[in-house]
Amino acid sequence: MKLNILGCYSATPRTFTNPTAQVLEIKNHLFLIDCGEGTQVQLRKNKIKFARIKHIFISHLHGDHYFGLAGLISTFRLLTRKTELHIYGPKGLKDVITLQMKLADSWTNYQLVFHELTSTESELIFEDDNVEVYTIPLDHRVYTNGFLFKEKPGERKLNMQSVEKAHIDKAYYRKLKQGADVENKKGQLIKNVDVTNSPDPIKSYAFCSDTAYKESIIPIIENVDVLYHESTFLEQHAHLAPKTKHSTAKEAAQIAKKANVGILILGHYSTRYGNLDAFMKEANPIFKNVELAEDGKVFEF
Amino acid sequence: MKLNILGCYSATPRTFTNPTAQVLEIKNHLFLIDCGEGTQVQLRKNKIKFARIKHIFISHLHGDHYFGLAGLISTFRLLTRKTELHIYGPKGLKDVITLQMKLADSWTNYQLVFHELTSTESELIFEDDNVEVYTIPLDHRVYTNGFLFKEKPGERKLNMQSVEKAHIDKAYYRKLKQGADVENKKGQLIKNVDVTNSPDPIKSYAFCSDTAYKESIIPIIENVDVLYHESTFLEQHAHLAPKTKHSTAKEAAQIAKKANVGILILGHYSTRYGNLDAFMKEANPIFKNVELAEDGKVFEF
Repeated sequence: MKLNILGCYSATPRTFTNPTAQVLEIKNHLFLIDCGEGTQVQLRKNKIKFARIKHIFISHLHGDHYFGLAGLISTFRLLTRKTELHIYGPKGLKDVITLQMKLADSWTNYQLVFHELTSTESELIFEDDNVEVYTIPLDHRVYTNGFLFKEKPGERKLNMQSVEKAHIDKAYYRKLKQGADVENKKGQLIKNVDVTNSPDPIKSYAFCSDTAYKESIIPIIENVDVLYHESTFLEQHAHLAPKTKHSTAKEAAQIAKKANVGILILGHYSTRYGNLDAFMKEANPIFKNVELAEDGKVFEF
Repeated sequence: MKLNILGCYSATPRTFTNPTAQVLEIKNHLFLIDCGEGTQVQLRKNKIKFARIKHIFISHLHGDHYFGLAGLISTFRLLTRKTELHIYGPKGLKDVITLQMKLADSWTNYQLVFHELTSTESELIFEDDNVEVYTIPLDHRVYTNGFLFKEKPGERKLNMQSVEKAHIDKAYYRKLKQGADVENKKGQLIKNVDVTNSPDPIKSYAFCSDTAYKESIIPIIENVDVLYHESTFLEQHAHLAPKTKHSTAKEAAQIAKKANVGILILGHYSTRYGNLDAFMKEANPIFKNVELAEDGKVFEF
């Protein structure tokens, strides 16, 4: 699992900072999460292949989270994309993108599939053989979802030395991988655990931005390997957090602690702060494994 | 008059090139012309004061000419702008911007005034004591206007030595500036031309992008000091120009020559070309005073 931060600042794009966008690489998918203005340039700078993006998840319809989407859709068209593009986001997103295409009289030559979200309960919005994606209902000024990305458990791994020693026919390998006990060539029952190893541990990533401090997300994100939680403010501006429905670094750390996550990544910093050390300083006493998002930074788990 | 090119490439923003946007400084106005994605970052990089922009002119509703507008409007709001913002552009622009504000539940705290354009004839769309702005109907795949910016003639300038020598009362200075003959303190008629000099010559700038070769714009842009005319293609791709309703460098030069303009600036280059020298090479034999637009370049006239 690889997380490429394209932008992790709030509000407005500036010369050296970008609004929210990140790419999660998981089980051969490249999921784009949010798409602030300038995302396509950030994709280029970070050498991410446009064609590999087939699913885009938009948390909410504030400009700093989706004003780059119309341009990206249009660039896909100019690149003569053929493959489907799936977009998951709040109701209304389809209308605004469709209106822009209509006014430009420029329709995509590939299929654009909108999955409009309206539920205030967590729901499964994407699933294939390897990955599941759930919404995480957040508490912001407009309808907002975070997203939980979870690998599905893989198959058990054959211990080839033991398998051969136990004289098991190749025809039974598939069954072994699925966890079954099998008979060997001599008619003896071979226990699965004796000839296989556990599958790779499944990994999970939760993206939570933008949101006020919201404890009811904890059951959804409990035990995730990595949590990206917004921390727009430092303590000195804590009074602004409930009013604007954002969180402080300290609150993000409290959520991480209570949800027993592996690593907490902070981001969505207000552009009023010159340097990010204070975010670490305020979150760290509450939760130990804190990382700071930065534009262009790549996290591998 | 000062023209700051923020972006002069067609189609998509890339790592080092930007879609169309430029700022014209004329008689103390800062007019923003087109607003492709990333324009607000380009404004910052070029150190242009956001608050000084009070009028934005949008040529047409292809994304590379206005996808930065919603973000800029939203940034103005975050900067707690108070002054009115006037936006001139094709019908439909108001709908799409309003829909985006509605979905974000974020309305401007300053007055946003849309001037929606529908005429296919050149019309006066802005006027004050010093400047006039006219549309230039262009020929593109969607409804498109160029814009003609013209200074108004200023007042005649007093030649103070002659004025004093002629014993003219200060009360008549205003009349002299307006071109009238006046009586001096001795009751003698003083001819205006004997005590004043001509006003500064008026300057004019025409922005024409995007458009196919269109001779009927010539009467509108005739004799302008500076013409920015799109040149998406070189001769090797001339066959694409009529189909996509764009122009070649050669066609831009032909328009410049026939309209007897002072300087031709080429721009809106297709991103397929690695270097711009060929644009100059193809335009130059037809029209001598050619300049190449480049992102960040400033022209002073």
